[in-house]
Amino acid sequence: MFKINENYLKLPGSYLFSAIGKKVNAYSAAHPDKKIIRLGIGDVTQPLAPAILEALHRAVDEMGRAETFRGYAPDLGYEFLRSAIAGQDYQARGCEISADEIFVSDGAKCDSANIQELFSLDNRIAVCDPVYPVYVDSNVMAGRTGTYDSAKETWSDVIYMPCTADNAFAPELPGDGQTPDLIYLCFPNNPTGAVISKARLQEWVDYANRVGAVILFDAAYEAYISEPDIPHSIYECEGARTCAIELRSFSKNAGFTGLRLGFTVVPKELKCGDVSLHGMWARRHGTKYNGAPYIVQRAGEAVYSPEGKAQLKEQIAAYMKNAAYIFNGLKEAGYTVSGGVNSPYIWLKTPGGMSSWEFFDCLLEQVNVVGTPGSGFGPNGEGYFRLTAFGSYENTVEAVDRIRKLHL
Amino acid sequence: MFKINENYLKLPGSYLFSAIGKKVNAYSAAHPDKKIIRLGIGDVTQPLAPAILEALHRAVDEMGRAETFRGYAPDLGYEFLRSAIAGQDYQARGCEISADEIFVSDGAKCDSANIQELFSLDNRIAVCDPVYPVYVDSNVMAGRTGTYDSAKETWSDVIYMPCTADNAFAPELPGDGQTPDLIYLCFPNNPTGAVISKARLQEWVDYANRVGAVILFDAAYEAYISEPDIPHSIYECEGARTCAIELRSFSKNAGFTGLRLGFTVVPKELKCGDVSLHGMWARRHGTKYNGAPYIVQRAGEAVYSPEGKAQLKEQIAAYMKNAAYIFNGLKEAGYTVSGGVNSPYIWLKTPGGMSSWEFFDCLLEQVNVVGTPGSGFGPNGEGYFRLTAFGSYENTVEAVDRIRKLHL
Repeated sequence: MFKINENYLKLPGSYLFSAIGKKVNAYSAAHPDKKIIRLGIGDVTQPLAPAILEALHRAVDEMGRAETFRGYAPDLGYEFLRSAIAGQDYQARGCEISADEIFVSDGAKCDSANIQELFSLDNRIAVCDPVYPVYVDSNVMAGRTGTYDSAKETWSDVIYMPCTADNAFAPELPGDGQTPDLIYLCFPNNPTGAVISKARLQEWVDYANRVGAVILFDAAYEAYISEPDIPHSIYECEGARTCAIELRSFSKNAGFTGLRLGFTVVPKELKCGDVSLHGMWARRHGTKYNGAPYIVQRAGEAVYSPEGKAQLKEQIAAYMKNAAYIFNGLKEAGYTVSGGVNSPYIWLKTPGGMSSWEFFDCLLEQVNVVGTPGSGFGPNGEGYFRLTAFGSYENTVEAVDRIRKLHL
Repeated sequence: MFKINENYLKLPGSYLFSAIGKKVNAYSAAHPDKKIIRLGIGDVTQPLAPAILEALHRAVDEMGRAETFRGYAPDLGYEFLRSAIAGQDYQARGCEISADEIFVSDGAKCDSANIQELFSLDNRIAVCDPVYPVYVDSNVMAGRTGTYDSAKETWSDVIYMPCTADNAFAPELPGDGQTPDLIYLCFPNNPTGAVISKARLQEWVDYANRVGAVILFDAAYEAYISEPDIPHSIYECEGARTCAIELRSFSKNAGFTGLRLGFTVVPKELKCGDVSLHGMWARRHGTKYNGAPYIVQRAGEAVYSPEGKAQLKEQIAAYMKNAAYIFNGLKEAGYTVSGGVNSPYIWLKTPGGMSSWEFFDCLLEQVNVVGTPGSGFGPNGEGYFRLTAFGSYENTVEAVDRIRKLHL
């Protein structure tokens, strides 16, 4: 008689965004007349930029002619895209990353969920708290997190690194006796919108090299960095090639949430004894994945064209205008807010000591605005709430105005 | 100090098709003047059908307007595609499968590699021998296969079901003391091109229900079935809803190898005690996957339109004309051949007692034709060779003529 992977049963409740979706759908079904404004899930709303559309149409045409038709893609991605990424995202910033260290995929969510497969089940993970749920959940499903304490909402074998107002939402190095093997860091941060300076990130790289840990650095929001001295890549730090894997996405810099494209950088020096993680990830891609669609990889290439870059700069500026509107509007209204400067996320303290889900319900029911409860990202997210800048400007303004009129 | 997933190190050599690719590239680099004909990897060559191109262009246009732009797809696939699949692939054949039992993905390779995650590491798998390498390799990477015997090229904890000329390349039910928990079946078969009758498949379904096993039924080549009484889906068999998961692909019926689309059917009755595998697979999709691209799902929908169906029927007829040419040409030349009637694969015995890789090298070097060594699919594939019908007609004719002229 077959048995299931019991680790799945340990997962508490359903995936955060599915849970939100269900709640919003139920409200919407019961109140079909209400105009709900969604600033919850970090999903973009601007249409694809003209340069990307043009690349897609051209690639579709190629797929329609026998001479230019493309079947299976190279396992690790087309050379044209890997070269563009290595050149423009890394070498142009002085990071020593070559095209064959880039692994093209269908998105950073999948990569960040799959990357843990390369590691021993004995390895101990460290995550920020609050944190993007996929890091922990994918490790739960693999059986790496121990037992769940439903009162504390924590796992026995996970090292939680509190990110609170006291440390400006950037974690401290773990103390003695709490040495992690895998460290998930995401900067600019989801959900808090916080950033980390290059000097602080260098401390993490030095720490990882010292204790023999791997940093899984999620840089999905890199394009939103507006201030100097904030690292765009962990490879700006010395020594990162021997301790860090970087995850990137086209979702937030180019609006690819519905197109699906991302990549992971695994430097060849990153090794456990003689075994290169680069070779292992290549093997995983070759065995369990079949490449991102050709037409989508061509769309990705267009992100690096002069036209594409100019158009996407405008898209991001529009989202950042929303971010500033939310940040300033709520601040003026007396809310305690952070993020939003180098990130499309605004992190706010819930008013009057409400819990995150109480504030979620309140916003949904009273002013029909959807956000994300901070507690969904971890215990230290309790009492906080995430709003995204990915709506339209009109909706963003209306949502902020509605929230400001809320009588609590 | 971090440790790796040691199971990866157990994998012998590199993934079959990567190994072939490297060999062909090396030959090609050394002999740039030679025209190599590739009948190795099962990759299609005909351009996408007009109905699919039109759907793609239209969907790309939608992505360019704010009113019709689509961000994150529903985790499990768009309703329009799930309904088309459930209606036309299942209900129209009398199979009781509903739209919400269809899980849209980026391809059957990924699904067939990922599906094992739902099961306990203690579960014992049974595979045909020869077999598509991903089934075993994905279980090796998870640690489910025991130790490797490099002389026999078998894993200690895998039940191998020989598929030989004696049983017409369709496996016998496992004997006593060899009860599997997970049974991988693929019909029409890759690599042998063999099929299974409905009565024989019913025996498997009855067996699985009796011993409490799950059948993972890979029906990626279903569109090539030309004879009656060959089941297109395992759900044509009674009782399959309580023991079978079916994997399907758009790669071979619609030329989507470079577009990436597939789906998995998990019936709601399929349970281990109280736990539904449907719920588990939904949870996996929600946590570790982010949906197939909207534009590709619209292309998938076009596969079910009247125009799409008519155009794809012609594509498949063209490939089957190739299959018949290979089958008949080699048979006339004295080769022992099978497959090719309900499948795009021709399975042939290597001449003169050559090993599969010897014949591979011989074809590559002497007549510049690439096929796939049968031994790459398992020990019982030794002495066999796979040719695919996915080339152009001209290339197929030329390849067969070249092989016929081969002096061995």
